[in-house]
Amino acid sequence: MSVSSSPNPKYTELLNRLTEINDIKSAISLLYWDQATYMPPGGAQARGRQMATLRRLAHEKFTDPVLGELLEDLRTEEANRLYPSLEASLIRVTCRDYQRAVRVPSKLMAQISQHQSACYDAWAKAREAQNFAIVQPYLKTTLELSQEYALCFPGYEHIADPLIDQQDQGMTVAKVRSLFEPLREQLVAIVEDISSCVPLNNSCLHQDFSPKEQIKFSLGVIRSLGYDLNRGRQDKTLHPFMTKFSIDDVRITTRVYEHHLEQALFSTIHEAGHALYEQGIALELEGTPLAGGASSGLHESQARLWENVIGRSRGFWEWFYPRLQGVFMRQLGQVTTNQFYQAINKVTPSLIRTDADEVTYNLHIMIRFDLELAMLEGKLTISDLPEAWNERYRNDLGVIATTDLEGVLQDVHWYIGLIGGMFQSYTLGNLMAAQIYHTIISFDPEIPFEIERGSVKRLLEWLQQNIYQHGRKFTTSELMEQVTGSPLKIDPFINYLHNKYEYLYNCKF
Amino acid sequence: MSVSSSPNPKYTELLNRLTEINDIKSAISLLYWDQATYMPPGGAQARGRQMATLRRLAHEKFTDPVLGELLEDLRTEEANRLYPSLEASLIRVTCRDYQRAVRVPSKLMAQISQHQSACYDAWAKAREAQNFAIVQPYLKTTLELSQEYALCFPGYEHIADPLIDQQDQGMTVAKVRSLFEPLREQLVAIVEDISSCVPLNNSCLHQDFSPKEQIKFSLGVIRSLGYDLNRGRQDKTLHPFMTKFSIDDVRITTRVYEHHLEQALFSTIHEAGHALYEQGIALELEGTPLAGGASSGLHESQARLWENVIGRSRGFWEWFYPRLQGVFMRQLGQVTTNQFYQAINKVTPSLIRTDADEVTYNLHIMIRFDLELAMLEGKLTISDLPEAWNERYRNDLGVIATTDLEGVLQDVHWYIGLIGGMFQSYTLGNLMAAQIYHTIISFDPEIPFEIERGSVKRLLEWLQQNIYQHGRKFTTSELMEQVTGSPLKIDPFINYLHNKYEYLYNCKF
Repeated sequence: MSVSSSPNPKYTELLNRLTEINDIKSAISLLYWDQATYMPPGGAQARGRQMATLRRLAHEKFTDPVLGELLEDLRTEEANRLYPSLEASLIRVTCRDYQRAVRVPSKLMAQISQHQSACYDAWAKAREAQNFAIVQPYLKTTLELSQEYALCFPGYEHIADPLIDQQDQGMTVAKVRSLFEPLREQLVAIVEDISSCVPLNNSCLHQDFSPKEQIKFSLGVIRSLGYDLNRGRQDKTLHPFMTKFSIDDVRITTRVYEHHLEQALFSTIHEAGHALYEQGIALELEGTPLAGGASSGLHESQARLWENVIGRSRGFWEWFYPRLQGVFMRQLGQVTTNQFYQAINKVTPSLIRTDADEVTYNLHIMIRFDLELAMLEGKLTISDLPEAWNERYRNDLGVIATTDLEGVLQDVHWYIGLIGGMFQSYTLGNLMAAQIYHTIISFDPEIPFEIERGSVKRLLEWLQQNIYQHGRKFTTSELMEQVTGSPLKIDPFINYLHNKYEYLYNCKF
Repeated sequence: MSVSSSPNPKYTELLNRLTEINDIKSAISLLYWDQATYMPPGGAQARGRQMATLRRLAHEKFTDPVLGELLEDLRTEEANRLYPSLEASLIRVTCRDYQRAVRVPSKLMAQISQHQSACYDAWAKAREAQNFAIVQPYLKTTLELSQEYALCFPGYEHIADPLIDQQDQGMTVAKVRSLFEPLREQLVAIVEDISSCVPLNNSCLHQDFSPKEQIKFSLGVIRSLGYDLNRGRQDKTLHPFMTKFSIDDVRITTRVYEHHLEQALFSTIHEAGHALYEQGIALELEGTPLAGGASSGLHESQARLWENVIGRSRGFWEWFYPRLQGVFMRQLGQVTTNQFYQAINKVTPSLIRTDADEVTYNLHIMIRFDLELAMLEGKLTISDLPEAWNERYRNDLGVIATTDLEGVLQDVHWYIGLIGGMFQSYTLGNLMAAQIYHTIISFDPEIPFEIERGSVKRLLEWLQQNIYQHGRKFTTSELMEQVTGSPLKIDPFINYLHNKYEYLYNCKF
């Protein structure tokens, strides 16, 4: 019996420890999901404490030096394992996570965890009062903690690099900028071109649509996209999200507005995109650190691929629109497929990121990305943040916020996380989605026609085969190279926008 | 500054450790609640693993020798604390829990935990197939594990004593028997007497009642009993239960049958009784081992007090019945308050414990109690259990089960727990409820009249003041002595039954 085929007891020990940590983390996710869905208001205080306790516990267990020794031994003993094997990948990825985790003192982790609950509460109060001042001192602490966190990783080029790396491993400010700068130039040009065209009409989306029927239709759509309700479910929350308790229990949430048909529909498809990724991970990775998305950016790419590249495509509605009309005959009976397709793709510079169209969306992200950097660099104080935010919106998008709700208070990210690394993933995701989809249809040009006939079977299989099943076995840049044959670039996205919007606006940009 | 008024750092350390364990246990409760309410079927396997992991973790943390040393030191250093003070109680109760917990090896705990998930699954399958044989080998293991568990506590008089003590501290087989034997004699006589009276008619309960309206009405009832929905909620499950994530988040579940009005109504009041106890615990006990009911029996007494002593009383329906009629006018418009009162109190020997009336209910419990003892003593094998069960039902209640669903498969207890100590609490609870209520109305004879006017304010305040707020500070026998001035006895319950059922059946027993 060769050494490599008999189970290494140290590997078994590692696996047991990691499963334990995974199970604690799943419990944290459930505590969070319950808080957002069904928890009675009285439960909030104890819930904050419970989540902080379990987070601390998971961190303690993961940074246990015994685990570090196990990893070190296994790295040597199992060095002959094939790179993509379960064992080699588990050791490699866990080593990386471990190296990162042990740099952050438990005390700082506890401080961050405790602060996040308080800051989130203050954000909720600030939103209610439409008054940034309420959360300002908390956000100041968040910034200090973010800087302190970054300092745990000396040797970075930019102070935001460790924060970005945590979400999008391998990414840095320099790398993001090298993509964002030319992208921005192109986007600004496209927005300018579009603004000189005849605007599209999206009034058909703003009639009264029964929330119950909206939910039912959206669920029907994501079931046909392959979201498995035997291994998932959908609930209503204030802010939609996806969460996972195991590969076989991946849940999404949504919100519905009676007068905004696009909200429930596309946020459901978006979250289902995240969920398809998680449900598609190979079952042998269950309970290990490999059972997750490769990076925030890649995760986002799948949400945006299903939401936008597929969900806002002409072909997709070729099949689904008659069905939507069937549900909302009174409201949509006289609206053609093409009119509906135009409505869901209308480009307008706006104040709220989550309502933004595909083109201007990335300008929202760039504003946040730049502001994060400025704050971390100490060039922008928290007290100046609201005005800096509004100024950028005036300059970049030509829109003016009337309250901080439409400004600096709109996104939860900084108020439940750290400042830095929180936003680039969205735009990276958009770029990846376009590049991946471009590859897919050159491999299998039948796919768009299948979608027109209401099936995404081949598309989903391709994604599962090439991306989803691997979980975290490969890094995002490895996957992009493997899958598309080149590193991440902006051209496929720019080409996608040109093709789609020149047709939609019947203009040549 | 005296030693006793400055916080003892060891006490703070103890508190921190106990809060951590409490938070893990709350997460386990949530994992369980979610499994019973909203979890998609696919989630079951990982969920079993997650609960086992967290249970093991909580046991490990609690049996940590460092915690034992802390407790030992504190017992000496804080000996001058007053008995009922938070500090003294916390140390005293935790010492007791610790002494019990360390006797059980972690390996056995893990075995039990793992076995319980498997056994529960097998029970569910056996129920579906209506075939005890499917779960029989699992139950055999449960019995072996139960015996092994009991052996961890040498020095007992009866092998069931350690198992009973775990649920009802201080109770033993001998003590339970000294109550059950005379009780049984009296109950058999009452059942016999009642069977010679004209039977009551409960057909009014078996019409079609909209499940939605049933839930709404039941929720209205328990809100007026004082169940705080700001700190709780109700969901639907296969088997109703109460669970707690903190004193400010105490949830109940219910089930509804369209043709059995009594089911949702009384199971809701029953679980709300449990919940009122938990919601009434003093907030300063939050997160500590003191934040719970004093024993299973006392907990059950509160469920049964609200469900039966109050919820099935004539005075209670004086107020609520017109309101119930308002909801179900078509079905109940012609049924008088007295007819309804008779219907919800009809005594009939039956097969299913949870459907049993107040009188025969305790005979169901005694059957289970005796069978548990016989199994633990090795006098009854698992393979002979179904027939032994059915024989006792034939002899004691004169009813014959047609399938094991109506027999040995009906209760979940043995299949998710151990064999031993699982059932006596219900009858102890009935006895306690009668004894406590008897005391209350002799202290405050106004209470029944207030209930007739739709208010339980004074009753609830009395219970909160004298029982609920203390959590686990006092043992059940201490509380019974303090509250009723005597140890637990059967007379108040027997008197209660005589008064109530002689009136109902218009007979003198």
